Amino acid sequence: MTDKPAPLFDTLVIIGPGLIGSSILRRAHEDRRIARRLIACDISPEVRARVAELGIADEVAADPARAVRDADCVIICVPVGAIAMVAAQILPAMKKGAILSEVGSVKVTVMEAMAPLLAAYPDIAFVPAHPMAGTEFSGPDAGFATLFEDRWCLLTPPAGTPATALARVTTLWEMMGARVRDMTVEHHDRVCAIVSHLPHLLAFTICGTADDLADETRSEVLDFAASGFRDFTRIAASDPTMWRDIFLNNREALLDMLDRFIADAQAMGNAIRTGNEDVIVSRIKRGRAIRRSLIENRQA
Amino acid sequence: MTDKPAPLFDTLVIIGPGLIGSSILRRAHEDRRIARRLIACDISPEVRARVAELGIADEVAADPARAVRDADCVIICVPVGAIAMVAAQILPAMKKGAILSEVGSVKVTVMEAMAPLLAAYPDIAFVPAHPMAGTEFSGPDAGFATLFEDRWCLLTPPAGTPATALARVTTLWEMMGARVRDMTVEHHDRVCAIVSHLPHLLAFTICGTADDLADETRSEVLDFAASGFRDFTRIAASDPTMWRDIFLNNREALLDMLDRFIADAQAMGNAIRTGNEDVIVSRIKRGRAIRRSLIENRQA
Repeated sequence: MTDKPAPLFDTLVIIGPGLIGSSILRRAHEDRRIARRLIACDISPEVRARVAELGIADEVAADPARAVRDADCVIICVPVGAIAMVAAQILPAMKKGAILSEVGSVKVTVMEAMAPLLAAYPDIAFVPAHPMAGTEFSGPDAGFATLFEDRWCLLTPPAGTPATALARVTTLWEMMGARVRDMTVEHHDRVCAIVSHLPHLLAFTICGTADDLADETRSEVLDFAASGFRDFTRIAASDPTMWRDIFLNNREALLDMLDRFIADAQAMGNAIRTGNEDVIVSRIKRGRAIRRSLIENRQA
Repeated sequence: MTDKPAPLFDTLVIIGPGLIGSSILRRAHEDRRIARRLIACDISPEVRARVAELGIADEVAADPARAVRDADCVIICVPVGAIAMVAAQILPAMKKGAILSEVGSVKVTVMEAMAPLLAAYPDIAFVPAHPMAGTEFSGPDAGFATLFEDRWCLLTPPAGTPATALARVTTLWEMMGARVRDMTVEHHDRVCAIVSHLPHLLAFTICGTADDLADETRSEVLDFAASGFRDFTRIAASDPTMWRDIFLNNREALLDMLDRFIADAQAMGNAIRTGNEDVIVSRIKRGRAIRRSLIENRQA
């Protein structure tokens, strides 16, 4: 008689089962090698009722401090600005040796807010994660079990994180289907500023620039929007509150990337003004080279 | 016995059967109400051989001045910078009352180059067109008969264009499946600067900005490219020569839109720097409003 191997975690708690949180639950509910017991916790009665209806958790809880008592791993899946507040509520209730994680899109400000809290609980391992996946939708109905398939999940463990805790969170995300890499919070925020936050800032801005044109032209912008503008507005159709928080929390890296970008855009403008064909063509060609690399990296 | 109605044109000549030109030919070859006789003309022997193989024209010609002799309508489908040169070759050979058209993405500089030529041939009606459709591919194999379906075609007839000529070119593009509107060349170039040319300039630029980052970060930009950056590189994967010509030929309107955009991006940067949440959120929301309008206009 062979024993079934123990799951990765006995009890896994998701606080905030929205797009990301409910996708983790769905995957873990399908693959019981991840956790024996899944608890979803939310302050909203509507969200709790919906999660219960969906049947993607074993238990649904209202009080985070009670929900986390038996947890081997807790993942906070709330907006970046609320992570430390939730952590302050649950850290006193967590058991020694448990793992605390979160899934925010920026890491430096989260780490700054968490540092004093974590100092008081040296027996809790904090392993922040950023699964680079999402859609334009939110809430427990928006999630799906394959959301993280073949996407990157970046971990930003602070110095001194126990190797076993880092290994278990790495395994968790691999079991979610993701490719995992770890880096410092500062490096994470710079990478995300250029690959995600700045493109969104530019997309929001060009919509505003078009909207500012005279009434007649504005109407025609909408009528005649060519493919170029369509791509911009696709990435501009995201949640305003979420993006406000990301911009404000990754202020320093984002403003640095914006400055570099504006300098480069002005250089391109100058090349066009002076008719410098070599500069124009070489800049266009660099874009094509990056595009080809993306295709080779299966990210496009 | 009922007579079949006469086609829109007896002889239609396409000079430069690339993506756009070969798509016109394909559609007209499928729908013989457009022209009784289709002539494709190209300086390249390879292109002529391929068009003959594809069987999308009734005749294939090498010499433009000979090809246009019987034409009721000639459409020049060559890059913007070469349009006036081709026109200078064919205008002396065209018959009185014929229509001359072209399909360039910018109109002011084309009109400036064409004006002195046209003055010498007052019996030729010039009706420039800009079908707002395309793909990343080029050449006679890239075209397809439904390329213009439900897309806009902007006409920029000069003052004094005979109403019958404008009506026939309008009908031609409607038979191609397009929605047609006419406007001045100046207005056309400003609309296209904001909806197409500036988005492409920004997309090319952000690829360069990312490429300029330190070696380590650059590699990770490619690895971790989130959806925002993917959308940018999709529109950055276009033909360098075509885009160089567009940027240089629409210099004035494009640089004006770039200036407005940079001012707006800097204002957004300042709002982030000073933590002005109202400004940030209102700019994000304007982007969403434009996006919704695009969906309602069937352009997304």
